[in-house]
Amino acid sequence: MLGLNERTSELDRAHVFHSWSAQGALKPLVIAGGLGCRVWDHEGHQYLDFSSQLVNVNIGHQHPSVVKAIVEQANLLATIAPSTANLARGEAALRIVNRAPDGFNKVFFTNGGADANENAIRMARLHTGRDKVLSTYRSYHGNTGAAIVATGDWRRVPNEYARGHVHFFGPYLYRSEFWATTPEQESERALQHLERVIQSEGSTSIAAVLLESVPGTAGVMLPPPGYLAGVRGLCDRYGILLILDEVMCGFGRTGRWFAFEGYDVTPDLITFAKGVNSGYVPTGGVIISDAIAAGFDTAVFPGGLTYSGHPLAMASIVAALDAMEEEGIVENAARIGRSVLAPGLAALAANHPIIGEVRGEGVFWVLELVTDPLTREPVSAAVMARIKTELLARGLLPFLMENRIHVVPPCVVTDAEVAEALAIYDEVLSLDLLA
Amino acid sequence: MLGLNERTSELDRAHVFHSWSAQGALKPLVIAGGLGCRVWDHEGHQYLDFSSQLVNVNIGHQHPSVVKAIVEQANLLATIAPSTANLARGEAALRIVNRAPDGFNKVFFTNGGADANENAIRMARLHTGRDKVLSTYRSYHGNTGAAIVATGDWRRVPNEYARGHVHFFGPYLYRSEFWATTPEQESERALQHLERVIQSEGSTSIAAVLLESVPGTAGVMLPPPGYLAGVRGLCDRYGILLILDEVMCGFGRTGRWFAFEGYDVTPDLITFAKGVNSGYVPTGGVIISDAIAAGFDTAVFPGGLTYSGHPLAMASIVAALDAMEEEGIVENAARIGRSVLAPGLAALAANHPIIGEVRGEGVFWVLELVTDPLTREPVSAAVMARIKTELLARGLLPFLMENRIHVVPPCVVTDAEVAEALAIYDEVLSLDLLA
Repeated sequence: MLGLNERTSELDRAHVFHSWSAQGALKPLVIAGGLGCRVWDHEGHQYLDFSSQLVNVNIGHQHPSVVKAIVEQANLLATIAPSTANLARGEAALRIVNRAPDGFNKVFFTNGGADANENAIRMARLHTGRDKVLSTYRSYHGNTGAAIVATGDWRRVPNEYARGHVHFFGPYLYRSEFWATTPEQESERALQHLERVIQSEGSTSIAAVLLESVPGTAGVMLPPPGYLAGVRGLCDRYGILLILDEVMCGFGRTGRWFAFEGYDVTPDLITFAKGVNSGYVPTGGVIISDAIAAGFDTAVFPGGLTYSGHPLAMASIVAALDAMEEEGIVENAARIGRSVLAPGLAALAANHPIIGEVRGEGVFWVLELVTDPLTREPVSAAVMARIKTELLARGLLPFLMENRIHVVPPCVVTDAEVAEALAIYDEVLSLDLLA
Repeated sequence: MLGLNERTSELDRAHVFHSWSAQGALKPLVIAGGLGCRVWDHEGHQYLDFSSQLVNVNIGHQHPSVVKAIVEQANLLATIAPSTANLARGEAALRIVNRAPDGFNKVFFTNGGADANENAIRMARLHTGRDKVLSTYRSYHGNTGAAIVATGDWRRVPNEYARGHVHFFGPYLYRSEFWATTPEQESERALQHLERVIQSEGSTSIAAVLLESVPGTAGVMLPPPGYLAGVRGLCDRYGILLILDEVMCGFGRTGRWFAFEGYDVTPDLITFAKGVNSGYVPTGGVIISDAIAAGFDTAVFPGGLTYSGHPLAMASIVAALDAMEEEGIVENAARIGRSVLAPGLAALAANHPIIGEVRGEGVFWVLELVTDPLTREPVSAAVMARIKTELLARGLLPFLMENRIHVVPPCVVTDAEVAEALAIYDEVLSLDLLA
């Protein structure tokens, strides 16, 4: 008889089609359970989760009060149509708007981040009567028809079946598109570039600028001084709405409830998913400013979905946000970022010239790996594959993207767990990787 | 202090933005719990659910073994990244492919029906190297960028931001687009129309024809003899893939596991959601034929989502499909359709000239309401609003769409519950509605 690990692998290889992959050579890691920052398979192999899966398990695995809320709601009412009123849904919406800036009072719930962006784009187009949506090349906004075309990275290219999406370059000083040498210069020139794109596309054709407050999968590029406020200014000048995508960076990841709170900017629409309930139940949504919501008091909003405001998801949001507040989980992410990860990763970089740059805040960091600190040439896919193997062999579940290690543990990570991870990164980066 | 009904309504009106609606005048019904074919609010008002919510609660509300599976999985592992292998996911995929025709062995899981169609369209475009997708005007395929443009009904029109979607007319004898007078003629002419559209669009530009096996929200138009087999023939002749959308009609709704099993046709891709787990946890997916799956053994599939194959959803699929088999729930839907709803609704129509036509099978029926049986003029929105109010007042939660009552109870509905509903429909249709 097969062990459960083998049974899981066999079923997976026979019947499960995986995201973003060629299916033939896949050997997915078996995961059966987890707690806090650890996950394990059926045979007791443990991993320290410094990926937060897809950067979503902000509250850690199997937080008891979120599990309890799901269990209680499952026993009460698992599902109900979005056209009804449900108490868990109202309580979830209340908690979310209570975290949002003044002037945001309504939430449209979706199944995840992609359809959150879909619906924010829909609202922006209907509110403005304009068509185009601007977003950056270095971005990811989801996988559905409009969301994947809003996305700027390579995942857009085989999927360009929606129209009206225009891309521009955001600030990224380490690989500046603008020949800038200081953060201030990068910010100023990136804004000048955006304004030129707006003018060249025709400002009155543009419904929205859609930005991750801090681009996530693209590489955790913290906005330089004045950039997001400058984008807000351009949007105001040209009558364009600003949608901030907080799917990955929101709900604690940066050490703040919303990433944009660190950048002197208020958007018109906020999209979220992942951290809002750590993905314990699929959900996401749009937080809608009063001015935009008001337009749909009398006009029909032409969007919807069967599982909008799904009770299990709503109960998990209520429990997750309450636990994050009561247990100071966002504050922990901020403290870990400031006092543990910032110095720890800086020390790592000082010892390993393969680390070209360290960027981040909270529990949202990247190590950019290069073959040469001067040319900044990214390390190869083969080097990254080796690093993945070596990290897993030492019990660390990493998040790797292109030439980068994303250091993205749950917000509940402890000092000791960070120390453990730093030691593993150190050991692996000490190998002769570029040979 | 507010009662829970009032608290729910107040939070809902203050903070919840609803699907497909102008928000200003909404007064959503409060629902707090349910069991089988009944739901109730916080004050004990009960409703007989002849909507299955959004035609998704096939197994009825709060089926104990599905709730138990969710609870157990929540206690084990609520969420895990799609790149891992997970036993619940493998077991769910196994059960789904076991229900599918020979030659379907892989499942790509999504969050719902819309992104199931998004990904089926993506696969069809990549597999064929062609761009266009044909679907009918009387259809609904979901709310995201490509899914809403694949949709044919009015919900498409304010959302046409994806390209490559072409619409045609499907068979609908009661309101024939083809001046047909018999089902056979309607089928033949609808096929001739489709072939002319294929030729006129340029057959080599067309990746897929996307059809609900039985159009659902559009009005439960059972395909006439030979139609779906004829579409399959046209697809084969022109090298076009056939995607059948079983989101609403699949997993028991028609009294079969898949609706298409009744129509002598095998598609290339099958999309599903709703009935697969009765929506207890948001999920959906694409069942992929071997020929299409094989192409992605070596080519990267450029699609994915954080909650693909979500453990809670997967556990609920396993439990729901097992319970449906063990308890003969699909067989019950077939029997109810054949022996209870068919004669019962026919008798209702015989007594009420406002019923222009009765169509359906299993627990998937519509009453088409008309002001005059000869002109077939649809009743007004005001009449439908009155009907909704009167049905709710008598404790029946209806599914109404345009001029139609959709009679769509859970597949577990009993003879007694159908009798109760028929009596309520009879009473309301006896009112002087057209005055």
